[in-house]
Amino acid sequence: MNCNRTITATALSKQSATHILKTLNGQATTTAARPAFILLQSRCSPPQRQFSTSRPALMKELFPPPDTPNIKTTEAAWQHPIYSYEQMESIKVAHRKARTVSDHVALSIMRTVRFGMDLVTGYKHDKAVANGTKDPKEAKSTSSMTERKWMIRFIFLETVAGVPGMVAGMLRHLHSLRRMKRDNGWIETCLEESYNERMHLLTFLQVAQPGWFMRLVVLGAQGVFFNTFFISYLISPRTAHRFVGYLEEEAVMTYTRVLQDIDAGKLPKFAQMQAPEIAVKYWNMPEGQRTMRDAILYIRADEAKHREVNHTLGNLDQKNDPNPYAAKFEDESRPHPVKDIKYHKATGWEREEAL
Amino acid sequence: MNCNRTITATALSKQSATHILKTLNGQATTTAARPAFILLQSRCSPPQRQFSTSRPALMKELFPPPDTPNIKTTEAAWQHPIYSYEQMESIKVAHRKARTVSDHVALSIMRTVRFGMDLVTGYKHDKAVANGTKDPKEAKSTSSMTERKWMIRFIFLETVAGVPGMVAGMLRHLHSLRRMKRDNGWIETCLEESYNERMHLLTFLQVAQPGWFMRLVVLGAQGVFFNTFFISYLISPRTAHRFVGYLEEEAVMTYTRVLQDIDAGKLPKFAQMQAPEIAVKYWNMPEGQRTMRDAILYIRADEAKHREVNHTLGNLDQKNDPNPYAAKFEDESRPHPVKDIKYHKATGWEREEAL
Ligand SMILES: [Fe+2]
Ligand SMILES: [Fe+2]
Ligand SMILES: [Fe+2]
Ligand SMILES: [Fe+2]
Repeated sequence: MNCNRTITATALSKQSATHILKTLNGQATTTAARPAFILLQSRCSPPQRQFSTSRPALMKELFPPPDTPNIKTTEAAWQHPIYSYEQMESIKVAHRKARTVSDHVALSIMRTVRFGMDLVTGYKHDKAVANGTKDPKEAKSTSSMTERKWMIRFIFLETVAGVPGMVAGMLRHLHSLRRMKRDNGWIETCLEESYNERMHLLTFLQVAQPGWFMRLVVLGAQGVFFNTFFISYLISPRTAHRFVGYLEEEAVMTYTRVLQDIDAGKLPKFAQMQAPEIAVKYWNMPEGQRTMRDAILYIRADEAKHREVNHTLGNLDQKNDPNPYAAKFEDESRPHPVKDIKYHKATGWEREEAL
Repeated sequence: MNCNRTITATALSKQSATHILKTLNGQATTTAARPAFILLQSRCSPPQRQFSTSRPALMKELFPPPDTPNIKTTEAAWQHPIYSYEQMESIKVAHRKARTVSDHVALSIMRTVRFGMDLVTGYKHDKAVANGTKDPKEAKSTSSMTERKWMIRFIFLETVAGVPGMVAGMLRHLHSLRRMKRDNGWIETCLEESYNERMHLLTFLQVAQPGWFMRLVVLGAQGVFFNTFFISYLISPRTAHRFVGYLEEEAVMTYTRVLQDIDAGKLPKFAQMQAPEIAVKYWNMPEGQRTMRDAILYIRADEAKHREVNHTLGNLDQKNDPNPYAAKFEDESRPHPVKDIKYHKATGWEREEAL
């Protein structure tokens, strides 16, 4: 492979049938000074030797404009807890069996939503591979999922994923105000989750910017999903949390699948491409472990955490129970719900365990 | 005054024409073990000698139920910055002159809202006294504002005050997701403001619980205000922040007024009554300075901060500017927007100063 050859984004997009993903530099092929499409560029320079996390041309639209001379950067709203590599690698695909009517309703709605998402993002998924019962190298469907297709799926998923936490936090806040009751710490965890999802989105956006068609789809999807989730949470917050729990099970499966594909050598760009600056800062990624694969490892761990949190919240008394994730425990040495993944319970903590 | 005489809430409420405020123990006059109405009880025991901040009977409804053996308490979502007494006492009533059409629109709407609130809460207000041009002891209207009337006003105001920050934070979050852009730190400050307002509300609620009529008014007010502010923020976030800035000017005036009345000896209950536990913990109130007057001093400083923050945000480019309150500055020693009240600018920072 010739690394000096400039493969511009225009050349890339001509290879694709749809124009959903438009690269950042697709709009600027006339400007010779700008770097080539990030995915190809990274392939040429292995990230092990390339730790600088600032790529000026990429950050133009995403960072404060240059007319703020006194401000360096804005800080993260919520500090991310530290995850160890051992903890992150141990995250497994899991499913919480539906027990109550509410659970079954949540599961059915989630399956409908997933079907729509798979359709929109052109996703093909081999369950046997994700479960580990089949070698990813043998899976037929893998070949159809390129880095580009994965990016489309990630970006779309994350624009949707940031909605439930914000809606839940807002509704609980308004409820606390108008019913004049304490909330017992739920709001914070919901809002933090939505912030975390938005950071996932921004991470992917620093790598590739979607085109007008995808923007339109996202606009419509948010409108429908926000209103549906808003009403659902008013009707049954328990079912809504369970629904998010099931959605996160799928998110863990998606990211597990992509990690397997990377490790099977099917997605070389993700294996070598450096993680964007925003990801390095947000997760405090250690030097030498800052590839896109590493970022996806963090994201999967976050999704596993959301899976646990929402299944746990779905097990609690929505009106009176304190949120164990914002609680101080009598005995801190005994395993209990925590913000990091020290004590991870994939299918959530039962009410008795949690409180 | 005979401190052993049990003046129950029932006796109190008979003295009042309306039944808006129902004390916590009003529902429990048959239970002999419960303490009397907190306002009267505190008058008997000066807070200087009474530092215990737990009053079990009061916390029944507001704190986690006893069937959570492992959980002591839930932590504050946002740590409150430390305010010094000197800083808090120096807070002044202020008004930012309306300059643009947007400013005038915001001011007119705020005046309409305030008129409605004054009507609902039966508030009478002597502007000359609040401005310091008239001695509060000479003001006629003071006599009509009792501790009970103030409490009604505070509780109503704070149920409304928690709405704008949450709406602004949510809309900016959804905007960031669907437009796939960074938010530059605005969301956090908006959400933190709404949390702070909710803590004000919970502080007052630990002292007195409103009756059904007030609950109904609050319900209606939230429905109307949430939707109006939601749409306003979509149309013009700049005007919306200016509106909140003006609303907070009034809040500072209200709390300044009550502090003057306390210091003029007109509200002896507030001067002696101990601040509720939630307030002591949230503001980290120093021992020996934990009366209701002290709590109101903290609340007024918070409102002054909101006044500054919202006037400042109203001066910025809503789409591209970073939020200076979440920013790291090149030169931290130069005065710049901060989270505490170290550098306080009552009428907000102009865009050039802030960035
Ligand atoms: Fe995510
Ligand atoms: Fe998630
Ligand atoms: Fe307030
Ligand atoms: Fe305020």
